[in-house]
Amino acid sequence: MIPEPRFPAEPWQVRETEIDFDQLAQAESVFALSNGHIGVRGNFDEGDPSGLPGTYLNSFYEVRPLPYAESGFGYPESGQTVLNVTDGKVIRLLVDDEPLDLRYGEIVSHERVLDLRAGLLRRTLEWCSPAGTRIRVRSERLVSFSQRSIMAIRYVVEPVDDTVRVVLNSELVANQPLPPASGDPRVAAVLDDALEAVQHAASEQRGYLLHRTRGSQLLLAAAMSHDIDCAGSVTQELAAEPDLARLTVATRLEPGSSLTLTKYVAYGWSAKRTAPALRDQVQAALITAVNTGWDDLLAEQRNALDDFWDGADVEIDGPEEIQQASRFGMFHAFQASARAEQRAIPAKGLTGSGYDGHAFWDTEAFVLPLLTATAPRAAADALRWRHATLDLARERARMLNFTGAAFPWRTIRGQECSAYWPAGTAAMHVNADIAVATARYVRWTGDSDFERDHAVPILIETARLWMHLGYDGDDGRFHIDGVTGPDEYTAVIDDNAYTNLMAAQNLQFAADVVRRWPEQAADLGITEAEVDHWRSAASRIALHFDGARGVHQQDRGFTDRQVWDFEASAKEGGYPLLTHAPYFALYRQQVVKQADLVLAMHWATDAFTAEQKAHNFAYYDALTVRDSSLSACTQAVIAAEVGHLDLAASYLAEAALIDLDDLEHNARDGLHIAALSGAWLALVAGFGGLRDQGEHLLLRPQLPQHWRRMAFGLRVQQSRLKVEITPGTVTYSLTGEEPLTLRHVSVGTDELLTLADGESVQRQWSPVVPLTPRPHQPAGRPPVTLSKNGAATRS
Amino acid sequence: MIPEPRFPAEPWQVRETEIDFDQLAQAESVFALSNGHIGVRGNFDEGDPSGLPGTYLNSFYEVRPLPYAESGFGYPESGQTVLNVTDGKVIRLLVDDEPLDLRYGEIVSHERVLDLRAGLLRRTLEWCSPAGTRIRVRSERLVSFSQRSIMAIRYVVEPVDDTVRVVLNSELVANQPLPPASGDPRVAAVLDDALEAVQHAASEQRGYLLHRTRGSQLLLAAAMSHDIDCAGSVTQELAAEPDLARLTVATRLEPGSSLTLTKYVAYGWSAKRTAPALRDQVQAALITAVNTGWDDLLAEQRNALDDFWDGADVEIDGPEEIQQASRFGMFHAFQASARAEQRAIPAKGLTGSGYDGHAFWDTEAFVLPLLTATAPRAAADALRWRHATLDLARERARMLNFTGAAFPWRTIRGQECSAYWPAGTAAMHVNADIAVATARYVRWTGDSDFERDHAVPILIETARLWMHLGYDGDDGRFHIDGVTGPDEYTAVIDDNAYTNLMAAQNLQFAADVVRRWPEQAADLGITEAEVDHWRSAASRIALHFDGARGVHQQDRGFTDRQVWDFEASAKEGGYPLLTHAPYFALYRQQVVKQADLVLAMHWATDAFTAEQKAHNFAYYDALTVRDSSLSACTQAVIAAEVGHLDLAASYLAEAALIDLDDLEHNARDGLHIAALSGAWLALVAGFGGLRDQGEHLLLRPQLPQHWRRMAFGLRVQQSRLKVEITPGTVTYSLTGEEPLTLRHVSVGTDELLTLADGESVQRQWSPVVPLTPRPHQPAGRPPVTLSKNGAATRS
Repeated sequence: MIPEPRFPAEPWQVRETEIDFDQLAQAESVFALSNGHIGVRGNFDEGDPSGLPGTYLNSFYEVRPLPYAESGFGYPESGQTVLNVTDGKVIRLLVDDEPLDLRYGEIVSHERVLDLRAGLLRRTLEWCSPAGTRIRVRSERLVSFSQRSIMAIRYVVEPVDDTVRVVLNSELVANQPLPPASGDPRVAAVLDDALEAVQHAASEQRGYLLHRTRGSQLLLAAAMSHDIDCAGSVTQELAAEPDLARLTVATRLEPGSSLTLTKYVAYGWSAKRTAPALRDQVQAALITAVNTGWDDLLAEQRNALDDFWDGADVEIDGPEEIQQASRFGMFHAFQASARAEQRAIPAKGLTGSGYDGHAFWDTEAFVLPLLTATAPRAAADALRWRHATLDLARERARMLNFTGAAFPWRTIRGQECSAYWPAGTAAMHVNADIAVATARYVRWTGDSDFERDHAVPILIETARLWMHLGYDGDDGRFHIDGVTGPDEYTAVIDDNAYTNLMAAQNLQFAADVVRRWPEQAADLGITEAEVDHWRSAASRIALHFDGARGVHQQDRGFTDRQVWDFEASAKEGGYPLLTHAPYFALYRQQVVKQADLVLAMHWATDAFTAEQKAHNFAYYDALTVRDSSLSACTQAVIAAEVGHLDLAASYLAEAALIDLDDLEHNARDGLHIAALSGAWLALVAGFGGLRDQGEHLLLRPQLPQHWRRMAFGLRVQQSRLKVEITPGTVTYSLTGEEPLTLRHVSVGTDELLTLADGESVQRQWSPVVPLTPRPHQPAGRPPVTLSKNGAATRS
Repeated sequence: MIPEPRFPAEPWQVRETEIDFDQLAQAESVFALSNGHIGVRGNFDEGDPSGLPGTYLNSFYEVRPLPYAESGFGYPESGQTVLNVTDGKVIRLLVDDEPLDLRYGEIVSHERVLDLRAGLLRRTLEWCSPAGTRIRVRSERLVSFSQRSIMAIRYVVEPVDDTVRVVLNSELVANQPLPPASGDPRVAAVLDDALEAVQHAASEQRGYLLHRTRGSQLLLAAAMSHDIDCAGSVTQELAAEPDLARLTVATRLEPGSSLTLTKYVAYGWSAKRTAPALRDQVQAALITAVNTGWDDLLAEQRNALDDFWDGADVEIDGPEEIQQASRFGMFHAFQASARAEQRAIPAKGLTGSGYDGHAFWDTEAFVLPLLTATAPRAAADALRWRHATLDLARERARMLNFTGAAFPWRTIRGQECSAYWPAGTAAMHVNADIAVATARYVRWTGDSDFERDHAVPILIETARLWMHLGYDGDDGRFHIDGVTGPDEYTAVIDDNAYTNLMAAQNLQFAADVVRRWPEQAADLGITEAEVDHWRSAASRIALHFDGARGVHQQDRGFTDRQVWDFEASAKEGGYPLLTHAPYFALYRQQVVKQADLVLAMHWATDAFTAEQKAHNFAYYDALTVRDSSLSACTQAVIAAEVGHLDLAASYLAEAALIDLDDLEHNARDGLHIAALSGAWLALVAGFGGLRDQGEHLLLRPQLPQHWRRMAFGLRVQQSRLKVEITPGTVTYSLTGEEPLTLRHVSVGTDELLTLADGESVQRQWSPVVPLTPRPHQPAGRPPVTLSKNGAATRS
């Protein structure tokens, strides 16, 4: 069976023309809108049918107990779960008394378009009711980038042949019934009836609901206001009750006329403010939006996106699917972060309730590299959120008898919510990921206020953690034992290469900021001796090389272990392995869930020679089953670096198309924001060859076969760098007040280029000659291939 | 504060003369009676007050869900919990309308005696009621070794000064209220109201209750019958309701007269039989007991114990506390197993609900060595139980994609009930422990029927498991990675020495039985090639030696890790470590919960030279915090072998006195049957130097300072060997039809002695000269010392 692509490959939009009622939830994730503060899934305006109704507010969560049949010291007692809040999307339509429900009657035509430049979800529908009445519906929906609290919808109904009676019910609905959670632990626990009604009100065309969560005691306000445009006479009625506010608009529409409802919805929530204060806040936001008006909201929306794309866009003259998917991914990464403003960027953004709405290391390791280089304000905000949780991280460290700070593996508000410590507490690398992302932001932006106020404490406290966790071995090296690296099929091991190398960077960066900010460091009790220890430990970090096999060990002893029987797993349909084999079996053998040593080769590029990279990649690629969505992009980056450009292109496709083609069969729960951001890494760090660890930005441009051109922008300091790669040639162009020096590398070339404002420099490149044959992937896990019609398929 | 010993050191009994109302539950465990089928805690006859009411039937359990906040493949979904069944112990006494409750009135005198030769709990009480009435109560209680279903009580009341009105309520009580379970995960989950009433009846002096568990659907019947002996006129009334049957006996007692109530209680349960069948069964048992009568039940009881002690007793002419405690331990080990009859021997026997009533590897590794050498029938029954669960173990292996059989880490009925896989599923050594215990039983008894029917399948299926779990490394050795050894502070590690050496024995024994029972082996599909692989793997088992430190590694890489900061733990009162530090911190450092490599040196004695043993012991003893009760006995065995006899004596005390002196502060939940059995190992394998791995039993006799004599018996094949050690001299004496060859070893001596029936041989011995100074234990964890007054204290 050759799969059909769900969405035609169009450069700036994602378009659906048919409805697959079995895949509603996937499309709802794809068509989700968000500004990082509010997130609304692409549910149909009419509410029904839906796969998973979803409206989310960043960091608005309920607590739930974490049960343990056998508990242990330091296990978190309660978790946090993102809540489906009051739904303001709902506009139910009755046509001659028949509710518009797409499962009934006839869909004459249907189209939904996610417009990546306008920041809109557009919909057109022609529907014939079971009674034979035909109508057209057009709707547009936005979640405003310019007005953080606002979602708005324009909904237009018109008759096709005959006069029809039309009734619209525009609603705010709290405590929507949700489908039961599946047995899959990755699907968020459903919390029924989580919102306790506090107040409700309705007047003129405005309705208002205020609720409080029962456990976390957060207040939530939602308010709506409407403009109605209709030539004929219209009856209106507004009512509110605890869980429902509803504006009813009834009219008769002659052919050629239409009813247009513009709905503005404002959200607010707080852990501290009072109900009246919160009510005033959403009323104010609502009035501002109404005064702005629909057209200006659209204009503001486009402005925000123009600004983003101007610096961020990656143009690809190659496979159209990849062009579309990479923009789709960047769009969603921007949506997840643009107005998150010192709150977390969850693994699924605000597109679904998967992973309980938690944020992981994914953000710092995969999303922030993209944002730092393209939307630095959003990156800063995400890191300010981590800084805001530093006291919680210090507390967690104290509780575990550690020094410094221990950031949570998974959380919404900052408290550790991981209930399985071998893949939670033990995954200490999250601390280095945060620290290194913090240092990276400072290096790219030169934001010294941020460095002083946020980077200094984060770097110092994480460095202290590493000094507590590590020790000097008899071999003179600095070791960190008993941790879990990125590869979750190998846990609680010694000297994980990625963890060690990132910890070393963390220590080094911490030492650097102490030198630059001695006063702030002194406030944290830093002594020179402490910093000397950091530098010494960083310089002596343990990294294990298996001389016999000629490869580095992902952890001490890794390559000595038995290799997983991939043939058997392939034969038995045993992927993903975590749902077919116990951790016990996975941990004890050589089998890699996701890039780990390969990830280390990306982010600690100088710790490996080109030859080591080539052999390491060949060895580990053959062991990596990519059961995590955080795999393919990194495999792509290193595949490109070691010269396997076709393989890199396949891995790029696997990352970029993960949600559009639902490669992991779980897009229903929300999009894979980190994997989508990773597609940008595959392009820019993979084919662009971008590395940012050295003194200067390094670029090692290449292009896969059959690609005619790739161009991408980077925001560096106050400038914009544009990189345009065509076969054999690369052009670097700078816009910005200060000159920029970059390092151009290609086969036989390693050159520093200094560009001034408006300057363009052209250089030649040639492809890296691979030192190994193209690696074989584990049996049953070939990378995706793009079929002739553009659909990605995984095997 | 110098602690007072709770119980005076008397050689054949444990006697209490005061009541500590805060320590009721500990005394209830100490005074528990059991025959391995029924267990009753030492609750007062009157029911109140109690620490933890407890009446248990072996393998009678309720199922309960095992919750996971983050689940994983292969996690058991439900657990099993021992139930407090219908209580037949209760005889409430009213004295002139005042209930006898020891918290009120005045206790003039109180004594309880556990008689280790009679198998009785005796009690005498003189009590003055709040109203000033004085009475004497004497009671005796037994759980019959000869009649498996029977408990019996004789209860005698007599006035002291004046005539008193006396009412006795003798009861069967179901669904007793229990104290809430503490936060300690080791305390069994309390299951309220677990028994559903099915039938009840009362007639003449008999009462009867039948219940069914709601989840596990097991039927339970309890019946009671009474004899009343009283000179005066007696009023009786018998009544039954769903959860209560009650005989009321009322009379007036003149001074000099008495009321004697003899109560017989019969229990039965079944997963398959019908209610009428079960009712008939307990009625029949009850009538048999009544016909036997109290005096003959006592006589049978003494006979059974005479027979046990005759072959098993260890006489010590040394510290009286140790003499008492070692007999106490052997008594409880016998109680836990005597009539278990193909059911499990739980970690707490039937003395409490700790660990949910589960059986662990403790039984095979610590209890069965004692039983095999002293009560072989009980050992065989325990192994037959394992054999009865072999199909469940095969199923578990299949589910995990293993070959062979995987026995559960903790269970009542045979299903895996461990909810924490790093210390459950991963502790694969349980399979070798079972296999080696099976082979040991065959070697000691020559029971070839058992070997053919039970040992062959157990050994073959466990051998197959090891072949699945292990692999040939590039170094030519056979490795077993990613398992957890006995030391639970080090988990999921590679090449655990104990696991590997025991697996090698398992493979070797399996190969041996295949040779002896080719037909049975063929039925299980064994090929010659398979057996060759076993032998080859066993001969090449990996064992890692750290040349720099001159010691073996508990697991690959163990000695390279950081050493735990014991000083800090000692300063902060941080013991036991598991309640003060996360697993994360424990697993990554050198800190040993319980004997692991030291255990390997006991049970795989030939894998180490004397010098290695000395240095290994010194190294690991300094790391072993003994937070598990399975530590001290093994440290004692090896301390003795390497010549640290004083230290061995301290560790012996720590094992033997664990419950009498409540050294772990959890005797309330039940006794530590394995640690108590371990005290026997400390004596017989420690000072006696018994090893049973070679062709002949080996004895390397020694005595600690100030001990004048130790004598112990062993049942070998059909004979009894008696070993008597006095300073410098050992005497071996045999009773039995076949001659026995044993190996006498001492400094400079290694001699085979063959003894015929009735023959005694005397040899000299001298103490082992230690090769290292006496090891220092971890800060804060010195071994117990016996204070002048005989109380053990841990620090």
